[in-house]
Amino acid sequence: MRARRIVQHWLTLNGDGPLQLQLVRALRAAILRGELSPGQRLPSTRTLARELHISRTTSQHAYEQLLTEGYLEARQGSATRVASTVGPLPDASHEPALPSSRELSAYGRRLAEGPFGYPYRSFAEMDLARFELLYGLPDHRAFPLDAWRRALADAARHATPRALSYGEPEGNASLRRAIARHALSTRGVRCHPDQILVVAGVQQGLALIARLLLDSGDRVLLEEPGYLGARAVLASSGADLVPVPIDGQGMDIEAVPKRARARAKLVYVTPSHQFPTGEILSLSRRQMLLSWAAEHDAYIFEDDYDGELRYEGRPLESLHALDRQQCVIFAGTFSKTLFPSLRIGYIVLPSSLIDVARAAKWTSDWSCPNLEQVALTSFIESGDFARHLRRSRLRYASKRRVLLEELARALDGVPHSVGGSAAGLHVVLWLPKASPREIARIVARARALEVGVYPIAPYYLGEPRSGLLIGYGLLDEASLREAIRRLGRAILTR
Amino acid sequence: MRARRIVQHWLTLNGDGPLQLQLVRALRAAILRGELSPGQRLPSTRTLARELHISRTTSQHAYEQLLTEGYLEARQGSATRVASTVGPLPDASHEPALPSSRELSAYGRRLAEGPFGYPYRSFAEMDLARFELLYGLPDHRAFPLDAWRRALADAARHATPRALSYGEPEGNASLRRAIARHALSTRGVRCHPDQILVVAGVQQGLALIARLLLDSGDRVLLEEPGYLGARAVLASSGADLVPVPIDGQGMDIEAVPKRARARAKLVYVTPSHQFPTGEILSLSRRQMLLSWAAEHDAYIFEDDYDGELRYEGRPLESLHALDRQQCVIFAGTFSKTLFPSLRIGYIVLPSSLIDVARAAKWTSDWSCPNLEQVALTSFIESGDFARHLRRSRLRYASKRRVLLEELARALDGVPHSVGGSAAGLHVVLWLPKASPREIARIVARARALEVGVYPIAPYYLGEPRSGLLIGYGLLDEASLREAIRRLGRAILTR
Ligand SMILES: Cc1ncc(COP(=O)(O)O)c(C=O)c1O
Ligand SMILES: Cc1ncc(COP(=O)(O)O)c(C=O)c1O
Repeated sequence: MRARRIVQHWLTLNGDGPLQLQLVRALRAAILRGELSPGQRLPSTRTLARELHISRTTSQHAYEQLLTEGYLEARQGSATRVASTVGPLPDASHEPALPSSRELSAYGRRLAEGPFGYPYRSFAEMDLARFELLYGLPDHRAFPLDAWRRALADAARHATPRALSYGEPEGNASLRRAIARHALSTRGVRCHPDQILVVAGVQQGLALIARLLLDSGDRVLLEEPGYLGARAVLASSGADLVPVPIDGQGMDIEAVPKRARARAKLVYVTPSHQFPTGEILSLSRRQMLLSWAAEHDAYIFEDDYDGELRYEGRPLESLHALDRQQCVIFAGTFSKTLFPSLRIGYIVLPSSLIDVARAAKWTSDWSCPNLEQVALTSFIESGDFARHLRRSRLRYASKRRVLLEELARALDGVPHSVGGSAAGLHVVLWLPKASPREIARIVARARALEVGVYPIAPYYLGEPRSGLLIGYGLLDEASLREAIRRLGRAILTR
Repeated sequence: MRARRIVQHWLTLNGDGPLQLQLVRALRAAILRGELSPGQRLPSTRTLARELHISRTTSQHAYEQLLTEGYLEARQGSATRVASTVGPLPDASHEPALPSSRELSAYGRRLAEGPFGYPYRSFAEMDLARFELLYGLPDHRAFPLDAWRRALADAARHATPRALSYGEPEGNASLRRAIARHALSTRGVRCHPDQILVVAGVQQGLALIARLLLDSGDRVLLEEPGYLGARAVLASSGADLVPVPIDGQGMDIEAVPKRARARAKLVYVTPSHQFPTGEILSLSRRQMLLSWAAEHDAYIFEDDYDGELRYEGRPLESLHALDRQQCVIFAGTFSKTLFPSLRIGYIVLPSSLIDVARAAKWTSDWSCPNLEQVALTSFIESGDFARHLRRSRLRYASKRRVLLEELARALDGVPHSVGGSAAGLHVVLWLPKASPREIARIVARARALEVGVYPIAPYYLGEPRSGLLIGYGLLDEASLREAIRRLGRAILTR
């Protein structure tokens, strides 16, 4: 019997979740794998129920759901069939690209040809090591998920029709007020909430600004070594990238020949914890940079990605706080203080850019999702955020102490120095004597010892120095100790 | 006494929320208004508690929170003071723009000069009328907020470290699988999940594609009248916009002179419910468009913004389902089926564009927020989405019946026709005899009768026809009836 065959061959309920859902899943899968074909007649709900030893109601509800979803169709008085419009999904990862003579734009070609593949799939596809020293990720254990869940649920529970509807491109007004206060109290950034544009992280902030300011061929100064997310977006805009070397005082603009820095339209800089070296831009360099920018009509993009995390001394004033010429665009993010996949950050705009940046945000994606903005606002207002920040600082400060202690112990006798430890979530272990090949071997040996650690070389446009990035966000203190001990072994082995 | 003065003058607890929070808010406000100045000494927690008749613990906790937030500072053994870095926020809406000689890019100038101001603040700043017939918004009453809240809370509760970390630019893999199934079963779009890019709504989908395909001066065909969000993003890319007239069969590409459509690189079209006229692209036009695009190496952007909502007849197959040349980019969104401020949509890419579109998404904003993607996945998988869709269709179909009935009754004797009622959330009321001035007067009279209704004119690049857009998403049936009766009066009055 036909119906029986269908049931026997194709419908295996996998025992996971309510019966109705199991049946829906099994039928969907059979259709999508092509085992049930378009137009094929299905057993009656009664037969199905009997064969599968489930109740008639269950089989009826399952059919109804699949009718609604469009997998099945039923004409009055006749049997239920697989819808004529559905059929197997393509099973190749995707159909072979037809030789396309359709052309990409100049931007599209730069993206397609550029070396932008490196980081953008890394996190999802990476095999994290047992002792993972990946930089750039905060400690998920520290994050008060319960409080966040409550804030989210409250935002949904009290959602007004307007809150569900299209929102302001510049971001929710209460969130912008909360951010203005936060930026003032933690970073000395004094701005009116109207100057704030809520964006999907620093990444979107820089992407919007780059597009608003840069034509292909325009000159941009950026740190060397520097952040790949920034480099990729600037390079894809077709800008002429001028690397500015980093020393112990941060970016040294005077080290670039005058001619090479003339007519730069934008400077990208991470003053509070240079990425990746971790150096802090000194006060005199800050002043130098500001007066240079004012004189040359350049904008400065101040990427303050982890400025809230500082362990030694008082934080220096942000460039924005020192700026008297409205040339600084300040960017902050909740990726490091809360969690990266939240995708909420902000930029503080000079008044001349407010309207046009809002228009750019609107045409780009209309606005950031609203319920998350509402949740974030109450998370800040309630003091949960401040409490979390305080605890995080203590937690990271203590991990950092462990890290520095263990590094000193593990590398006794090895020529090395540790940079960038005054702030942020990672340090650089400089190994001046190690060749690039040795660095690669150390990384591989560490991996064999279940330690994930990464060379600093990819962050250089030019000749790299030898060093390793060590992130201490992810691991707890005990694992961090063990990780560094093992890393020490990887370095000492020859 | 100093402390007393501070307390008496500046600290009014407003009785809203826990005492500690009231005190924190009052102190923050006094600092941000400049009533307490940087470096100023504060009363001791003991004095404060006494003066305000609150417990010492409350005042201590409030000071601690403000210390953490950076508003206050305390050195060992000395009094608590207002932090030297904080002070009043600027109180002008923003500082006067300094005459800036810094230049915008060509894109920036187009955005700054373009007529893109029209819709992008509308929803937030609009005074909604009591009987609001604004188009483009779904019925918030229909939305199962409780189920959504649970899905969100579950996503947060079960969040893994990886789920909190940076995600895949192309979107969460399980969501892409769920979307591939949804697009197949509801719209006949057959694709592999790898072809799907999760984006922040159709708006971002089109913005990314426009940027990947169009250089300034490149030719784009778009519907006339047409959607402003699309027109704005295409115009800001510097493309040469060629309007294609709409008739009862939708976009008529043959009505454009051959020379004007030669060398077009992209066609923007809303086949399932043309925005704003609501016409449905006929099958022969679909085939004509596809073969034209294949012949001319053009891409087609199929904006299927409300394709799940169809009330008459069976939906025509999507362009994507008919495409044999991989020239269609299909775009769907959850803005109409769930709610707009969710900002989740998707595009289905020809294989040649997968990698480059993913790179564009990554450099633009890294990825969409992840917990919402997880919540949406379980919302779809559980059947909640299908159930909601079924109920929504019934609800809108019934409202639509009411709307058409009432329009016929209210406009008896007035020359008119109603377009675009077979699908979607709005219709067009064509009033062929009304001049633009009369339309404006009708809109104003309707407003005076507390009815919000909108002319179709702004959606034309060229000479507009006379008509009104009537959205039936927002109102319930009784209000909809009343709204149309009043609108009838506004039209009949001379
Ligand atoms: C220097 C720097 N800027 C910005 C970011 C990313 O910020 P967001 O997640 O806000 O886009 C990172 C992330 O690692 C970073 O290292
Ligand atoms: C024709 C059309 N396309 C797209 C959209 C917007 O879609 P999304 O919210 O997904 O960006 C709208 C919204 O009103 C629309 O009318």
